[in-house]
This record gives sequence, C-alpha cells and structure tokens, in this order.
Amino acid sequence: MAQIRPHTLSGFMELLPAPQAQMEAIMDILRKTYSLYGFCALDTPAIEAADVLLAKGGGETEKQIYRFQKGDSDLALRFDLTVPLAKYVALHYNELSFPFRRYQIGKVYRGERAQRGRFREFYQADIDIIGDGKLSIVNEAEIPSIIYRTFRTMGLRRFQIRVNNRKILNGFYAMLGLSEKSGDIMRTVDKLDKIGPEKVAEILIDDCGLMRELADEILRFIAIRGTNDEVLSSLHGYCGRNETFDQGLGELETVTKYLAAFGVPEENFAVDLTIARGLDYYTGTVYETTLLDHPEIGSVCSGGRYDNLAAYYTDRQLPGVGISIGLTRLFYVLSEQNMLNENWNTAPADVLVLPMTDDLTPAIELATELRQKGIRTQLYTEAKKFKAKIQYADKLSIPYVIFLGEDEIAAGTLSVKDLKAGEQVSVSRENAINIILDGIARSHQGTILK
Amino acid sequence: MAQIRPHTLSGFMELLPAPQAQMEAIMDILRKTYSLYGFCALDTPAIEAADVLLAKGGGETEKQIYRFQKGDSDLALRFDLTVPLAKYVALHYNELSFPFRRYQIGKVYRGERAQRGRFREFYQADIDIIGDGKLSIVNEAEIPSIIYRTFRTMGLRRFQIRVNNRKILNGFYAMLGLSEKSGDIMRTVDKLDKIGPEKVAEILIDDCGLMRELADEILRFIAIRGTNDEVLSSLHGYCGRNETFDQGLGELETVTKYLAAFGVPEENFAVDLTIARGLDYYTGTVYETTLLDHPEIGSVCSGGRYDNLAAYYTDRQLPGVGISIGLTRLFYVLSEQNMLNENWNTAPADVLVLPMTDDLTPAIELATELRQKGIRTQLYTEAKKFKAKIQYADKLSIPYVIFLGEDEIAAGTLSVKDLKAGEQVSVSRENAINIILDGIARSHQGTILK
Repeated sequence: MAQIRPHTLSGFMELLPAPQAQMEAIMDILRKTYSLYGFCALDTPAIEAADVLLAKGGGETEKQIYRFQKGDSDLALRFDLTVPLAKYVALHYNELSFPFRRYQIGKVYRGERAQRGRFREFYQADIDIIGDGKLSIVNEAEIPSIIYRTFRTMGLRRFQIRVNNRKILNGFYAMLGLSEKSGDIMRTVDKLDKIGPEKVAEILIDDCGLMRELADEILRFIAIRGTNDEVLSSLHGYCGRNETFDQGLGELETVTKYLAAFGVPEENFAVDLTIARGLDYYTGTVYETTLLDHPEIGSVCSGGRYDNLAAYYTDRQLPGVGISIGLTRLFYVLSEQNMLNENWNTAPADVLVLPMTDDLTPAIELATELRQKGIRTQLYTEAKKFKAKIQYADKLSIPYVIFLGEDEIAAGTLSVKDLKAGEQVSVSRENAINIILDGIARSHQGTILK
Repeated sequence: MAQIRPHTLSGFMELLPAPQAQMEAIMDILRKTYSLYGFCALDTPAIEAADVLLAKGGGETEKQIYRFQKGDSDLALRFDLTVPLAKYVALHYNELSFPFRRYQIGKVYRGERAQRGRFREFYQADIDIIGDGKLSIVNEAEIPSIIYRTFRTMGLRRFQIRVNNRKILNGFYAMLGLSEKSGDIMRTVDKLDKIGPEKVAEILIDDCGLMRELADEILRFIAIRGTNDEVLSSLHGYCGRNETFDQGLGELETVTKYLAAFGVPEENFAVDLTIARGLDYYTGTVYETTLLDHPEIGSVCSGGRYDNLAAYYTDRQLPGVGISIGLTRLFYVLSEQNMLNENWNTAPADVLVLPMTDDLTPAIELATELRQKGIRTQLYTEAKKFKAKIQYADKLSIPYVIFLGEDEIAAGTLSVKDLKAGEQVSVSRENAINIILDGIARSHQGTILK
C-alpha cells in the first residue's frame, strides 16, 4: 500500500498519554472549581459563520483567522470564546437568566506564525458573568478569587493576580488633558514590562506626541508601588479632580476590600497601575496574572470588566466581567519550567490483572469486581513472557499487579505485587482490595503542580 | 453600530444551559467509565494535514470533509477519531506501550446535507485497544462490556448490543463460492433492517448477480434466530466446511462466553448474524447497539475488530478493536424520545446567597465557606427587588436560598429556604450546611436517564 508519512501539524499540541493525564487533571480542576462558583458549562461550535465571528472586525484577528468556504457558506474557526459568548447571549437572550454565569473550556484557532510555545490550536478556559443592563461591582472581586482558588487547587502558590481599573487610567489622562490619546497611551504603557520605562517615554513623546513633562508625569504615576493600602493611599492624592478617576478609585477600593473577604491573601494579589490590557473593550477593572518565578512568561490569565458584550449583535446593554486562562500555553509553560509534580499518578490503571490460567473466566470476574469497587483495572491477556508483562506495568507506572493462578483460585486468595516497593503478598480478596484502595488514596495526595 | 444578525450554523448543536448540564453529566460518565477499564485519555488536533487525513482515500469521506488552505498548507478537519488514532499510533509507536488502550471524546466534522437529527459537527466518544502484531480475543468481549457498563451507569436498560463475526460471514460466502462477492453481499445484507428481506434478495440477484437459490440460502442463514446458545448451536451445523468460518465461530463462542463473565446479562446482548458493518476494515467481531424501544434510530454505538489500523502510514501490523458512540446524535435522540430524567439536577448552583446588608463582607465570607464545603454557591449581589431574586433562583432550579441579614449575623444563624418545598428555617450555620448537603445528596440520586 502507498504510504503517507504520519505527522502532526506544527503549532498543534498533541501529548503522549502521561502528560495528557496531567492535562486532563488540570481540566478536571477547572471544571470543578468553576462549578463550585455557580457557573454553568457551555459548549458552542468551533465553526461559525464568518460574518458572525468577524462582526467586530479588527486587523490582527482577520489575518490570523482560519476562514474557508463549504458549498455557499463562508465559514471560520473561532479565535476566542468571547465572540461566541456574545453571539450566544444575543441569540438566546430570552431563554437565559441574568446575571448569566458561564464557563467554557474549548479549542480556539489562530493561524499565527509558528514559534516555540505558541500554538495555532489551543484551549482557552473562560469564565464570564453577564448582566442585563447592570452588573454589580462585587463580581469584579469574585472573578479573580475564582482564579486564586483554581491555581491553589492545582498546587500553584507563587503567583500574583494584578488588578487595576481603566477608569483610574482614563480619569488620570483626562486630568492631564490627554483623553483623546488615552487609548494610544495605554497601549504603550501596557508594554512597560517588555520594553522598560525609557522606551515607553520615548514612544509617548515621539509617537503619541506628548510633552516630556507629561510623559514623565505618566511614568511617575504608573511607578506608584507598595502594599495595596499604600498604592490606594497614593491614589487618593489625585482625588477630586476628575469624576471618572474618583469612580475608578472607589471601584478599585471595593474590589480590594472584597477580595480579602473572598479569601485571597495579599501575597497573591496586587494593585498594579501598569496593567491596562490592550483591548479596547475593557472599561473598568482589569486583571493579569503572573507566575512570580517566571515573570518573563507574561500573563497566564487575563481579563476584565466590559460595558457592552454584544453591541455588534444587539442593542441590549450587556455588561460583563470575565477572565481567560490560555490553557494550552499554560500547560506548555508548566511542563517546560518543570513545575508539574512527577509523583502525580499518570498511570492509565491502578491494577494490572495477570491471569495464570487457561480459562480466563475467574480473571475477568475479578477485574469486574475490582472495577465495581472503583479500582481502575486493566486485564492483561496477551500471550507474552512473564517479564514482558511486568515491564508493561512498569512502563505505564501501573502501581499494582495481581496474579491469579490455580493456587490462588483454589485458596480464594490473590497475589498482589506493589511494583514500587517490589513487595508481593498473598492475601484474601478483601485484603487485596483494601491494600489497593489505600495505595490509590496515598497516590492521590499532593497536587498536580509541585 | 452596524449590527450582524447573531445565528448558529444549521447542523451545529448549541445547547441551552440546562440540557448542556445533562450533556456534561453524560460526558463525565463516559470519562469515568472508560478510565475504570484502564483506558488513557487522548486528545488530538481537530485540524490535520489533508494528505494525512485522506491517506486512506474513499469517496464519501472526501466529499464530506471540510478542507481548506492556510498559507501553503492543505488542511482538513477530522471526520472521525479513528484516522487520527492511526496517525498517532504510527507516529508515536516507539513511545507507546502495547496493548495501547485509549479513549477519546472529541468533535468531528462532516459536511453532510443538513437534516433533522444529523449534525455537521458532532462528538464521537471512542475506545480502542491496539495490539503490536497480535491482540488477544478477550478484548473483543471486553469492549462491548464497557459499553454495557456505560449505558447502565447512565440509567439505560432497554438496549441490546448485537454481535457478529465477519469471519463467519466470509466463511459462509466462501462455502457458497461467493468469496469474491462477499463485500457487496455484506453491504447489501447490512441494509436488511432498513429495506427488508425481499428487497435484499432483489439486490442480491439483480445487482450482485446471484442465483435465486444462493440468495435464498443467504437469507435463511441470516434469519437464524433464538437465544445466543440456539444461534451458536445452529451455526455448528455449518462447521467443518470452511476454515475461516470455523475460526469465526470459535471466536464468537469465546466472546459470548466471556461477555457473561464481564457481567453483561443475556438480555443486553445478542448474537445477530445480520450485523456486518459496511466498513471494509473490520475483520472479526463486529458490534451494533440498538435502543430496544426505538429500533428505528438504528445503531447508537458501533465498532469491531480490525487487523490493520495504520497500513497507510506504517508497515507495522497493528490489529485492534474499538467502538464508537455518536454522542451528539445519541444526546439528540435521548432528548427527542423524552428519555432524559427531568428530575436530574441541572441547576448551576446548589445555593443562592442573598445578602440583606450594605456591607457584603459577611455574605462573601459565607459563600467562601460554603464553597469550601463543596457546595456550589452563587452570591447574588444585583440591586433587584426581593421577588426578582427568588424568581431568578426558581428559573435556574437552584434548590436553596440563604438570606443573610443583620439579625442572622447577630444571632450567628442562617435563614435557609427550600424552594421546592417552599419551607424556610432559621438554623445555626452548621445545621444549614447539613440541610443543604443532605438535599444535594438526595438530588443526586437516580440517573441521568429515566
């Protein structure tokens, strides 16, 4: 037969079984944590009508999108989960209850230039809360607290959720008479971490046309540092000069106050005036999340408050707040940085049953019984040498092997080998099950990240 | 702003939150059951190189496939999970251990003519066991037993897994001197349920060019009915005339015997000589699964044994056995046939916390505590009338509302309202949590199907 070379496209993550098990564990944590906060699951098509996906327009998006014809239809693959959410809420508005809280974990597609750690197909894991006309500020404190809980459940400790409010920035620029340039300025300031303050000042002066004093004033403002109380206190010095600023500061204080009530410790959370988020649709609180030991990676989880989710589909005012984890990239980074717990159980089974009799009925019945007890069991019935069978269990990190021969069947016992300890015992069926259940419980201690 | 009409493409399933919760519950059952049988999770890209996906060729597939260019690349969306599995195993052969047991639940794409109950994007939920060179017959009994366990866990009882063996059919046709026509004959016989025996005979005679007596002999053969023992016993009447037939009968007897050991009752499993599966690559045991009360729907879960998974990618002999649930279609059918349990809890939260104080700190702390106890909690902080808040909980079927006002805070109590019973109690925090945990446990009794 003429053969084709099997290959996977570059920029597409395809994991081996053990890392896939780690990825599944992370997805499981996301689903469970998001559910705990009262979010419903959503699943929308990966393919949408191109005019629907591109309703908002936008240069970069349009270049990167996978777009194609099928019959007469102009189709495209979604490039994020926010546009499909906007479509969903506009389309199903009458059937939804607001605030509408949904999570969605799904693949999105961007035909970016392939490079290490950048993916063309990747999972996003989003949570959003959408209001009908209005949405309470408390949601803006709850969203980062969910990310805190999610990351802590994974075992991550050294991370910081950075929070700012676009109204503070917009108000501040208005004070300086720079309202019309605030978009350009924020996009420039957003690059601070990457290019440093001097280069930012240069762009502000040369490209945005700011006077040197104004550029310096902006840099002094975004350089405000300290504990959250200190930063908020510094900001109070600017109060009373601009209504938007004052409103933004009030919101930031509320978010800061309630974040503590939501159980987020100060060390995992910082008011940071340099955070602006480049996207134009954020209007209030904005978030970025950095791994403290790997600031070079940039934000692994970002989002914010927007006033109008679906203006390009409906006249209804649908304000919301949301945050998105770039899951594929995060997983790639966690692997690369050696942050995954190598003691985490990635075996596809807890027990390998090795029948030593011609009639396999007793072994099959045993496997069925073990599975009924919730023990993940593989029955190994290939005609291989004994050594090959043990090596198979070893290679897959299956912790226990059960031998079932005529002697065991006659005596009503099981021979259980703990492969890690290298110990083998011959015990009653009940004891064997208990040994294995204890072992599983022990192997599930600890977290997916170390 | 110029607006675009929001719409979802026809042939693409997009569920409202409550049915999505049911779909998620089914997916969860699939993941857990497949894991219990020692299968690893796999996730492969939805986009592959077109030459890789179409390596095997084939008319219908090529017409239905979503294929497009991006830059210089000729790309396509996967139309099943078997071809990606073949690619995966051929590509990662050296890094895998065999037998390789994987499950995959993922979306696949077929640009079929849109019609009710047919989808262009749909989930398949596949399990396969791949051997290296050889694969034990026991796997062919285990695969349907996993489907049995999966469907029973969902709450389905009235279904039947129908099993046959292609070697029996091939051997039988060889006895009649019809080996060269066996492919055409099997594809014709496969339509028996849809078009009836007379039409099948007509096609066998007119299109396949069979003599009337041979067509009648075939119809008599596939009409063999009875208990599994009776069918097997009738088949013994044909023994000794063809080696392939005898081998197939031996395999079918082994599969039948071990299926009982795997715990599958006779009522959920039948030897059925009419099952052939149209696909050429099946070489041994084949399966179809029908809902006994809805035979008109056809098979909801099909598969079989194949001798060579990846011949178009590699010279290695990779025999396997697998089965696939067309999940999106199955879910559609279960909904349409009113088989989903309407008492199944589809609420996004177990509790809605309604703060009755200006400072939301106590309510936030309560929500945090409830979540730590594993109670799915939504904090409702929108400025709405009391009635609107209760209606919100009602509409989402959230079973409990907790009111937290100054009185409750001072007394250290909580007012808990059971919305279904319409009863409200004022109890200690500990009692409130116990009431809710009990209620959740009760609401999780029963199965997703009724």
